[in-house]
Amino acid sequence: MIVKISPRGSMDQLSQLEVDSLKQGASSELYQLYRNCSLAVLSSGAQTDDAKSLFAMYSDFAINILRRERGIKLELINPPASAFVDEQIIIGIQEHLFAVLRDLIYVRHKFNNLKHIDLNEPSHITNMVFDVLRNARAISPIQDPNVVVCWGGHSINQIEYKYTKEVGYQLGLRKLDICTGCGPGAMKGPMKGAAIGHAKQRIHNPRYIGLTEPSIIAAEPPNQIVNELVIMPDIEKRLEAFVRMGHGIIIFPGGPGTAEELLYILGILLHEKNHGIPFPLILTGPSESAAYFEELDAFIAATLGEAAQSKYQIIIDNPEEVARQMRHAMEQVKQHRKHTGDSYQYQWGLTIDPDFQLPFEPTHAAMESLDLHFSQEKAQLAANLRKAFSGIVAGNVKADTMQQVEEKGPFNLRGDAALMALMDKLLSAFVEQQRMKLPGNAYTPCYQISK
Amino acid sequence: MIVKISPRGSMDQLSQLEVDSLKQGASSELYQLYRNCSLAVLSSGAQTDDAKSLFAMYSDFAINILRRERGIKLELINPPASAFVDEQIIIGIQEHLFAVLRDLIYVRHKFNNLKHIDLNEPSHITNMVFDVLRNARAISPIQDPNVVVCWGGHSINQIEYKYTKEVGYQLGLRKLDICTGCGPGAMKGPMKGAAIGHAKQRIHNPRYIGLTEPSIIAAEPPNQIVNELVIMPDIEKRLEAFVRMGHGIIIFPGGPGTAEELLYILGILLHEKNHGIPFPLILTGPSESAAYFEELDAFIAATLGEAAQSKYQIIIDNPEEVARQMRHAMEQVKQHRKHTGDSYQYQWGLTIDPDFQLPFEPTHAAMESLDLHFSQEKAQLAANLRKAFSGIVAGNVKADTMQQVEEKGPFNLRGDAALMALMDKLLSAFVEQQRMKLPGNAYTPCYQISK
Amino acid sequence: MIVKISPRGSMDQLSQLEVDSLKQGASSELYQLYRNCSLAVLSSGAQTDDAKSLFAMYSDFAINILRRERGIKLELINPPASAFVDEQIIIGIQEHLFAVLRDLIYVRHKFNNLKHIDLNEPSHITNMVFDVLRNARAISPIQDPNVVVCWGGHSINQIEYKYTKEVGYQLGLRKLDICTGCGPGAMKGPMKGAAIGHAKQRIHNPRYIGLTEPSIIAAEPPNQIVNELVIMPDIEKRLEAFVRMGHGIIIFPGGPGTAEELLYILGILLHEKNHGIPFPLILTGPSESAAYFEELDAFIAATLGEAAQSKYQIIIDNPEEVARQMRHAMEQVKQHRKHTGDSYQYQWGLTIDPDFQLPFEPTHAAMESLDLHFSQEKAQLAANLRKAFSGIVAGNVKADTMQQVEEKGPFNLRGDAALMALMDKLLSAFVEQQRMKLPGNAYTPCYQISK
Amino acid sequence: MIVKISPRGSMDQLSQLEVDSLKQGASSELYQLYRNCSLAVLSSGAQTDDAKSLFAMYSDFAINILRRERGIKLELINPPASAFVDEQIIIGIQEHLFAVLRDLIYVRHKFNNLKHIDLNEPSHITNMVFDVLRNARAISPIQDPNVVVCWGGHSINQIEYKYTKEVGYQLGLRKLDICTGCGPGAMKGPMKGAAIGHAKQRIHNPRYIGLTEPSIIAAEPPNQIVNELVIMPDIEKRLEAFVRMGHGIIIFPGGPGTAEELLYILGILLHEKNHGIPFPLILTGPSESAAYFEELDAFIAATLGEAAQSKYQIIIDNPEEVARQMRHAMEQVKQHRKHTGDSYQYQWGLTIDPDFQLPFEPTHAAMESLDLHFSQEKAQLAANLRKAFSGIVAGNVKADTMQQVEEKGPFNLRGDAALMALMDKLLSAFVEQQRMKLPGNAYTPCYQISK
Repeated sequence: MIVKISPRGSMDQLSQLEVDSLKQGASSELYQLYRNCSLAVLSSGAQTDDAKSLFAMYSDFAINILRRERGIKLELINPPASAFVDEQIIIGIQEHLFAVLRDLIYVRHKFNNLKHIDLNEPSHITNMVFDVLRNARAISPIQDPNVVVCWGGHSINQIEYKYTKEVGYQLGLRKLDICTGCGPGAMKGPMKGAAIGHAKQRIHNPRYIGLTEPSIIAAEPPNQIVNELVIMPDIEKRLEAFVRMGHGIIIFPGGPGTAEELLYILGILLHEKNHGIPFPLILTGPSESAAYFEELDAFIAATLGEAAQSKYQIIIDNPEEVARQMRHAMEQVKQHRKHTGDSYQYQWGLTIDPDFQLPFEPTHAAMESLDLHFSQEKAQLAANLRKAFSGIVAGNVKADTMQQVEEKGPFNLRGDAALMALMDKLLSAFVEQQRMKLPGNAYTPCYQISK
Repeated sequence: MIVKISPRGSMDQLSQLEVDSLKQGASSELYQLYRNCSLAVLSSGAQTDDAKSLFAMYSDFAINILRRERGIKLELINPPASAFVDEQIIIGIQEHLFAVLRDLIYVRHKFNNLKHIDLNEPSHITNMVFDVLRNARAISPIQDPNVVVCWGGHSINQIEYKYTKEVGYQLGLRKLDICTGCGPGAMKGPMKGAAIGHAKQRIHNPRYIGLTEPSIIAAEPPNQIVNELVIMPDIEKRLEAFVRMGHGIIIFPGGPGTAEELLYILGILLHEKNHGIPFPLILTGPSESAAYFEELDAFIAATLGEAAQSKYQIIIDNPEEVARQMRHAMEQVKQHRKHTGDSYQYQWGLTIDPDFQLPFEPTHAAMESLDLHFSQEKAQLAANLRKAFSGIVAGNVKADTMQQVEEKGPFNLRGDAALMALMDKLLSAFVEQQRMKLPGNAYTPCYQISK
Repeated sequence: MIVKISPRGSMDQLSQLEVDSLKQGASSELYQLYRNCSLAVLSSGAQTDDAKSLFAMYSDFAINILRRERGIKLELINPPASAFVDEQIIIGIQEHLFAVLRDLIYVRHKFNNLKHIDLNEPSHITNMVFDVLRNARAISPIQDPNVVVCWGGHSINQIEYKYTKEVGYQLGLRKLDICTGCGPGAMKGPMKGAAIGHAKQRIHNPRYIGLTEPSIIAAEPPNQIVNELVIMPDIEKRLEAFVRMGHGIIIFPGGPGTAEELLYILGILLHEKNHGIPFPLILTGPSESAAYFEELDAFIAATLGEAAQSKYQIIIDNPEEVARQMRHAMEQVKQHRKHTGDSYQYQWGLTIDPDFQLPFEPTHAAMESLDLHFSQEKAQLAANLRKAFSGIVAGNVKADTMQQVEEKGPFNLRGDAALMALMDKLLSAFVEQQRMKLPGNAYTPCYQISK
Repeated sequence: MIVKISPRGSMDQLSQLEVDSLKQGASSELYQLYRNCSLAVLSSGAQTDDAKSLFAMYSDFAINILRRERGIKLELINPPASAFVDEQIIIGIQEHLFAVLRDLIYVRHKFNNLKHIDLNEPSHITNMVFDVLRNARAISPIQDPNVVVCWGGHSINQIEYKYTKEVGYQLGLRKLDICTGCGPGAMKGPMKGAAIGHAKQRIHNPRYIGLTEPSIIAAEPPNQIVNELVIMPDIEKRLEAFVRMGHGIIIFPGGPGTAEELLYILGILLHEKNHGIPFPLILTGPSESAAYFEELDAFIAATLGEAAQSKYQIIIDNPEEVARQMRHAMEQVKQHRKHTGDSYQYQWGLTIDPDFQLPFEPTHAAMESLDLHFSQEKAQLAANLRKAFSGIVAGNVKADTMQQVEEKGPFNLRGDAALMALMDKLLSAFVEQQRMKLPGNAYTPCYQISK
């Protein structure tokens, strides 16, 4: 089955050089990345978080860029049938396909080739994140702060899912936009709820921003409500995009990925230079999930302490209150930006240490040598814990890392015994609550805690 | 509490004459109608279908029209709190308020005063329905046939409600617009579902058309997703608007109102002059509701016969198939309109007998004297049955008629014994399935069947 | 030659009743009016102000309304070739054709038939003018006061024409919209100039409002820059529309029509109740036209006196100053409307005496019996002088009146000798300066002054 | 006088790196270029083509980029008063200021720093031209071929100017967009005329594309009707942009710059690979300019021969015919692009030899060593003649080159005597007709012909 797809969304025409760079064969690595991301987008809605099995299922899928008089077209060979309704591609997916193309080409042509971008230089990383977002037209609209980032698991239960929808609905009623990691579960619910709230408020251009990156996209294919999809180059730049673009963060229940995100934002907010910056951070869930947050809160208390706890509040079973507080906090954010002259669309003023910016490659060696001891700065400890959870996410759902774990066995985590015990407890809870992977398969841990 | 509201939606500025006509006191009857419809709109979302209790609850509500330099404003005194989010009126409700104002003023100033409109003349009624819709800008957009009317009960169970959402979702994915009676239940579900489907398809101006009329609006307040609300002058003009504007009809489970609607459309489609006009009509529900449709189908078979049955199909538990067939039928409707030169937006070519057009006032005398015998034309029988069910709806939920029934006792229905038995059976099923009124109150029938 | 034209602009779909009312033969009088107005619009750009010769030239022109699936179409039989560019109708003309249809149908269906509109009642006339404008969507946009009415002759010389363009350019640079009588000469120049000014200021929806009426449209066909054309029912309602819609008035050189307009606005501004209403009124022209304004000013001084003179200022050869003052005055107008709560779009608060509202039919008897004596209120004298000039305009360019004058000889004007001498002087100057008719034909006066 | 200006048009937000690169002092060369281009834009409408005197007049002008919460602002210190109307900057100029910023930053950050762009490689130059245009959003709209490039002198007489307006008007009536070098004279007239034609045709987003480059912008400041201004990096890339973006070319009378442009397009069309590509090329002017075109045609005949002559047609005094032929040719262009799959927005398929692409720096040495002999390929001869005229333009109006000529005396041109005689004749005619510089100053040739 061969289908030709016309451009939609923010894609410009491509130059000959750009088209050539994505030709099958021309650069097999870039093409492969492009093909896989496109396949992930086309698989939106599939009930799997297993990139490997997804790729296996569609091994005969291919994609070609054709140049035509009105611009380019995409030729899809053997795409997943679920991307189509009565033989017509779903427009949301069509837009996502071109978002993938746009971002891969941009990063490739701008950053693979630039002399002066020293990507170990923090300010250059921050500029690059900005560049990618701007090129995706994700920061151009001149509007007041209203982007609420929603973090949480892709694998949550029905009660939690319904709760995320209800929070989204209340956010939508308050004219707030939603930004998530753009997969299923807690990344989809708030958008679905907000869509109804926005409809009632006649918001004609609501933003459902999805930030993903090539190594996670196949495990968490973008849901089709996302109307601004951006493929960031890697996990750290995606995280930086979240915290510079978002004006507030809500954290729903989730697994190690959610823990990673919480540690990331706490590590940053603990930085001395960021004191005084208003950054609303709310942990919330239905009353059935109260225990989850108690556990998480206890973990933070025991590891990062009260200073970290003071950065967030926990609200149980009260979507309206969550939304009301977010709406209210937007005014403070606005005043702060106005006062400091910092951009409403991209918070340059937030200081992010290189330790949170530089890519962490979760090899077995890197995981084993993580410094997981109490005797370090809290922000530093947060950074290292963040890496530990990041590695576990990769071992759970990212094709490359899963392959490594399969070959070499689980990651080994070492450190202070008390800290190791805390981690073990938290991770075990995740396993038990089926937050590691989508239910249905038995979970084999990709890690072991050395005590 | 006093709130001032600015215009939104399709309201133009008002002339001095128009403002004067709606002043409190100026014409107490018109003002009262206007005030009650506005209150109904403001009560959207309230869990009641009892107009009387609604009016009682907000007896101190008042509304005034103020003239200001940028046009008019509405002053609301003691409006229901549910219309507001954090002290801000919900925009959907704001638009509905001005739709009420627009339609009441238009009908009042154009038709209460015109010399040449003889409203017993069928063609003039049809032109009036067109006029009201056009003034509401409900027929101006130049687009292909895609309006699916969804009929069904305001009081349906959760499984049925979820099913109407799923059908709406599949319709939305196929870029079809939704038109309903604009209350809760089966009138809201399809719109909510379609909103998600439309979002995935990036439909930026979806139409959620709600058609109501002053005597029903308080019992079935418009849901806020409705983005084109039209208040037709009475129930018969509302029904005519449905069948001339809609390009196809889906019927979900419902009570006597739904039976009325089914009888109305069947009576029209049975008219000799309408043979050959493609008019997709699908009865559908979840598998749990299969028995409901068997009952309804049996009633139609026994009263109007096979010819009537051939006008619809019943699809159980298959939302995708329902939507696919509707989408497909749109092409036939388009071809037929093109071929006959009939308008895409308003089907002038459909013949509607005066018996279906002239207002039926359900007094005790009128109900008792309805001709409910088999020995008449099928279309005629449909018309009379339609009136019987219309009267029962009024007795159930419309304030005036409820008052009459309270005073004089239930309506008396007479006719062929066999026909009476059929009606009794159907109505009893409605009672049993809690389709007469919202659950929670015991139902006292407003009718009795004379056998 | 037969051409079919699709709707453009603010035309809605028509009802069957409406289409029927404009059918050839159905009502020959209305059809004839409709046909003639349409012909006038199609003749835009023709170098003639002689309705009779225009109608003679296109005696085989006809127009039919066709009903089609997407709405109506117009069928033009033998239309003027100048309305087309390479066989395609100019879009501006296409819009004007549908504006004619819209307004004639509206007035016919709303006002020919209404019981309660007593058109001798001033407030009802004012409401009617509002209704027609609103139906044409000419008063809906919610914007600040910025409509400058430009009055002046259709027959002006090249230097004056260039000057009107320059004034228009300066108005456009100041983001002011233009409203004129929509014919050639001083009615076109300001729009052409403003179009360049607006382009430089990136005004994407500039308003070039043209107000005309059936008896003048053929003599002064709308220029195609006009993007909001409204056909008012008669000359008095057109004048009322100018002064209630416009926020300021500029008067360029012109003939008796311009004198009529000046007398009209002065008569109104002299009304006691209108004192205190800011209404910028500027008479302006190039230095070559200075004598013209001296003459006009002297005429006003001698007839209406200083009070009238104080209502306007004369600015010679300074387009920038004219525009700057208009821009500045808009702020005062805005403050006044805000303060009094009067509409930005339609000045209800301006008092207009019935003598300025009721249609004046310039028969020989009516002209002869005009009260042209000094011994009356100034506003009253202005009203009578206005009628005298109005009659002369009709005798010069309106088909019906020209016919009467041809048959019965010139109008006879009687009154105080001194007043008659003043009028004679002014009118002679108009004749001499070729302001009566377009140059090229000898002018035979349609009036004689009895001394 | 200090003014702060907000962004308008296609400017995105800037990154910190970008803002830093344009700071005064940071990189004095880039800042100087930026400041001068901004000054040129602000001087639009000034009656001068002398960059040096312009810079001298505003030596105290400075510009700063400020970062603010809603994006950047520009701070102008002592800008020319003519850029303002009643203290408000003209929006057209505001947009141009941000176009300058956008293009300088883009070229600087993308091409000054890229490793893989080998700008001696023809395909890379072509891709760069595309990149700059795309970044300026000048090639994104998906529409049919309709861009007519108008070339001609900035210094033309009133009759010629009026003629260019009339041609523009006829092009506008035919819904064609205009692209010029964006200065005064023949670069402004067609846009002004088209604006009226477009207004009559209700074109709401007409394109008035202006292509300039840093060395010419001060001599030919963009007129404010230009609504898409692009600053190409140098003269050759500007010429390439014209011929790849434009779908047809009209040449009005002009001086050496116009001769340069004619030689450029003829040289390209003479390339063997371009045979068969439809490229409408019309030379036109009023009857008073007939002799001019005879002279130019004779020069082409004598130098490039009949093959070159066959590439254009000369139409004298017939704006309607010019526009009709252009409109007609668009259809052929469209068919050809469709057939070959070449882009409607950017003609990749046109072959341009490096000799026409690589920058020509008109030093005295380079000018003297130009190969101006008959004994070479016609396309080659066209390339060399193009360079000769390019050098003369620079010597006439570009600040740097004028400086050189002042210091070292006029350029020396050498070659075949017959060829030199032809050039001398043509250039003398330009001098005599005041086409070298704006009238008012005596012209001192910047060249001498060695015979």
